[in-house]
Amino acid sequence: FDSKLPSTGTTIFTQMSELAAKHHAINLSQGFPDFDGPSELLSRVDHYIQQGANQYAPMTGVPSLRQAISAKLARCYDYQANADTDITVTSGATEALFATISAFVRPGDEVIVFDPAYDSYDPAIRLNGGTPVHIALLPPSFAIDWQTVANAITPQTKAIIVNSPHNPTGTVFSANDLEALYSLADQHDLLVLSDEVYEHIVFEGAEHQSVLRHKELAKRSVVVSSFGKTYHTTGWKIGYCVAPTPLMAEVRKVHQYLTFSTSTPMQLALADFLDAHPEHDEVLPSFYQQKRDLFNKAMSESRFTFTPSPGTYFQLMDYSAIKDVPDTEFALWLIEAAGVAAIPISVFYQTPPEDMRLVRFCFAKQASTLSAATQHLTTL
Amino acid sequence: FDSKLPSTGTTIFTQMSELAAKHHAINLSQGFPDFDGPSELLSRVDHYIQQGANQYAPMTGVPSLRQAISAKLARCYDYQANADTDITVTSGATEALFATISAFVRPGDEVIVFDPAYDSYDPAIRLNGGTPVHIALLPPSFAIDWQTVANAITPQTKAIIVNSPHNPTGTVFSANDLEALYSLADQHDLLVLSDEVYEHIVFEGAEHQSVLRHKELAKRSVVVSSFGKTYHTTGWKIGYCVAPTPLMAEVRKVHQYLTFSTSTPMQLALADFLDAHPEHDEVLPSFYQQKRDLFNKAMSESRFTFTPSPGTYFQLMDYSAIKDVPDTEFALWLIEAAGVAAIPISVFYQTPPEDMRLVRFCFAKQASTLSAATQHLTTL
Ligand SMILES: CSCCC(=O)C(=O)O
Ligand SMILES: CSCCC(=O)C(=O)O
Repeated sequence: FDSKLPSTGTTIFTQMSELAAKHHAINLSQGFPDFDGPSELLSRVDHYIQQGANQYAPMTGVPSLRQAISAKLARCYDYQANADTDITVTSGATEALFATISAFVRPGDEVIVFDPAYDSYDPAIRLNGGTPVHIALLPPSFAIDWQTVANAITPQTKAIIVNSPHNPTGTVFSANDLEALYSLADQHDLLVLSDEVYEHIVFEGAEHQSVLRHKELAKRSVVVSSFGKTYHTTGWKIGYCVAPTPLMAEVRKVHQYLTFSTSTPMQLALADFLDAHPEHDEVLPSFYQQKRDLFNKAMSESRFTFTPSPGTYFQLMDYSAIKDVPDTEFALWLIEAAGVAAIPISVFYQTPPEDMRLVRFCFAKQASTLSAATQHLTTL
Repeated sequence: FDSKLPSTGTTIFTQMSELAAKHHAINLSQGFPDFDGPSELLSRVDHYIQQGANQYAPMTGVPSLRQAISAKLARCYDYQANADTDITVTSGATEALFATISAFVRPGDEVIVFDPAYDSYDPAIRLNGGTPVHIALLPPSFAIDWQTVANAITPQTKAIIVNSPHNPTGTVFSANDLEALYSLADQHDLLVLSDEVYEHIVFEGAEHQSVLRHKELAKRSVVVSSFGKTYHTTGWKIGYCVAPTPLMAEVRKVHQYLTFSTSTPMQLALADFLDAHPEHDEVLPSFYQQKRDLFNKAMSESRFTFTPSPGTYFQLMDYSAIKDVPDTEFALWLIEAAGVAAIPISVFYQTPPEDMRLVRFCFAKQASTLSAATQHLTTL
């Protein structure tokens, strides 16, 4: 079959989660918590289902949720978003990313993407006839060299996709990164697509540099976030995006034909919870830092080496002392040898650096899960 | 702003529903029930939420729901779909339509679309660089002239989108339509995208001609359906598509990057309900026929004229005896004059036929709503 998209098979997340299930391994691969969100949030869905809130939500999202998002943006980033025109609720952050790319990328356009990159950026760009221009970030720092970015910009460059806190490396933008991004985007009239789904998971010593904090940069940006990551409900598939009115109008033109709207009772439940508990996202950093530290403390007894992750619920680890093989091979071996599933990093690169010996562990897990996993991992 | 998509503003459904709310009108415009789905289904969502089924569903849908869909296809259409490879659960039928169009339509491809057409087909084709070739169906019968279709086929024709039972007209394919469709699709090697979201809402004297009933035609088809329409839960936004394995593999390549997956607890609840109550879709025709007949009986006292709808929960009505103005003007006037919102039909045409004097009413409403609406409408 002559396919429009390369035969990626299924995503690495599905593959590893399925392998983990098959081998009864502890699943630290696909990024999701093995604990639940706040019970007040969970039970609120049924409240609205029983009230009969089971028909189409407005295309842009239920008003109370857009209001709650607007209030949160003002509180967290001192950003004034008009709830009617500048915010759209989507079927997960993935849909927001796809809608934004579809709204702006045309055949011939180039879009700068940093590797390791979330796996949907590249196919979304290609499906719209665009060319992804991959810039590889290298271990150990995975820092962006903005001069390299400047050199990659051509008259065809339409947009740049950034992701901080960064999946899979856990790195977090500095204020300098934000300034450098602004300077290039402004100079070359680029659209910035900022994937900030881990916005609330940033640890001591780092600070989330939201594009929304930089008022000039925000004017040419679409910022994407997710409720799944913040409220431990990845399976509800509710995300949102924020942009100045004229940009958001374009995103909505696609969103309305992509999914039209998303789960009404879940949106209403989230709205109530956001209103009642703005403090939830404020305790998230310490909540996850404890998990990171628990995992890393135990892993310091292992032959894996690492630098603590500044953000996200992911921790990269170097396994070269254990086995000198490519990371995909190591991840498969790890499931059999230790009964633990992790994600190889090379799959997030268009051209993986040679001899990279890193896998990603998700530490969004109960203490008992982390402890069982590290017990196995420290025997290697 | 130089936009990729024409300035449609927001969809007609949103516009009319918002106008209805603003004027406290009875909303017979956007298609959704004003009553709830089965209480056993509704309360099952909370069961799964409380059980902790709140993380990512598999990309293709939860296995129990794909199994339940497969069983239903065997029961209703004598169609054998492999639940692992031939069925994908999506964020509403809208996503399934978009994913299918994105998976197959390339720049330069032509896609045949029948007007009046659901409003997402055309922009989805255009966003993928394709050219929608609109064939207008005309009142009173809105029947397809297959010779006209044959004449519209060129070497660039890639696909044909059909929709039976048909929104907004309520017409239903005959067995001859299915045969004519097969003959053209086979002869010209076309992909068939069959939007069958109203599959279970077909009334006495008509029968749903699913593409899945025609085993040869099904081999080149993607069939899209919706749980929202069948279970009175349009706001849950869960749909699915069915296709032979190699076609489905292509659709999934797009789906995984479009939304990845959809609400886990709602999928699980639907799976249980489908298993326990296969009879639900069998009583749906008489359930909705009662509503259609209730509405139409009252409306026979009005100056609107109509032929009873053979399928869907929509009824077209001719208003020319009341006011000789274009339908959009009439729909706006109707909100003010009668306090009832309806959908003008011309918006579903690329080139609306002149002097068409039809609006669409949704009769998926409680008897009290229908009676209040007809009380107003019969005074005109
Ligand atoms: C949509 S599955 C991917 C989850 C995730 O973001 C990750 O594991 O990186
Ligand atoms: C997604 S809103 C449109 C609902 C509908 O299918 C209709 O009213 O025709």
